[in-house]
Amino acid sequence: MSESVSDFASGLVFNERGLVPVIVQQVDTREVLMMAWMNAEAISLTLTTAQATYWSRSRSELWVKGATSGNTQRVISLSRDCDSDALLMVVDQTGAACHTGDRTCFDAVTIHPEVLS
Amino acid sequence: MSESVSDFASGLVFNERGLVPVIVQQVDTREVLMMAWMNAEAISLTLTTAQATYWSRSRSELWVKGATSGNTQRVISLSRDCDSDALLMVVDQTGAACHTGDRTCFDAVTIHPEVLS
Repeated sequence: MSESVSDFASGLVFNERGLVPVIVQQVDTREVLMMAWMNAEAISLTLTTAQATYWSRSRSELWVKGATSGNTQRVISLSRDCDSDALLMVVDQTGAACHTGDRTCFDAVTIHPEVLS
Repeated sequence: MSESVSDFASGLVFNERGLVPVIVQQVDTREVLMMAWMNAEAISLTLTTAQATYWSRSRSELWVKGATSGNTQRVISLSRDCDSDALLMVVDQTGAACHTGDRTCFDAVTIHPEVLS
């Protein structure tokens, strides 16, 4: 099923700050690179430019991924989930996704269950 | 780097509702299955039972994935991101992850950028 950009955005359920969480996945390796947030304008910019654009909650501004670092994300596809309150974006990441220089933002601390059932 | 369950949970940044978003990924195919939310108790239960347990925001209760449907998630690992406000959980999903019967919650609506740069 495909929709226009405006239909896609208007079908979303934004939180009380007007944001929706976005899971970002690398197209070939299928690594989960990071999680970030978008408002309606970030979604529109992302889909019209094919460059991942987010809302920075700490700086309260739009943020083009890689604008300063060069580590841009070319956008392949954007999917919403069954209840329309989360997004999955498939991208082709240049360089590191994480500001620490790690490939993904989830590389730092991992824990395993105490009991494997 | 590995930590105890209590150290892992105490290192997290929960939102104003005491929740943290969790990205759920299938261990072998690396599909992103769903996004859900956990509070500290859900994290502890998940790591001590190895069965994915979430906080239902609509029902305001803990929720063991698959308790009614049988579509359980055996937990392999749980990682926090660079700023400790999002989790990535790798699981082995039995059956469908989505309540609609779809394999993942992101199977319904996908859009592609208008301009591929």
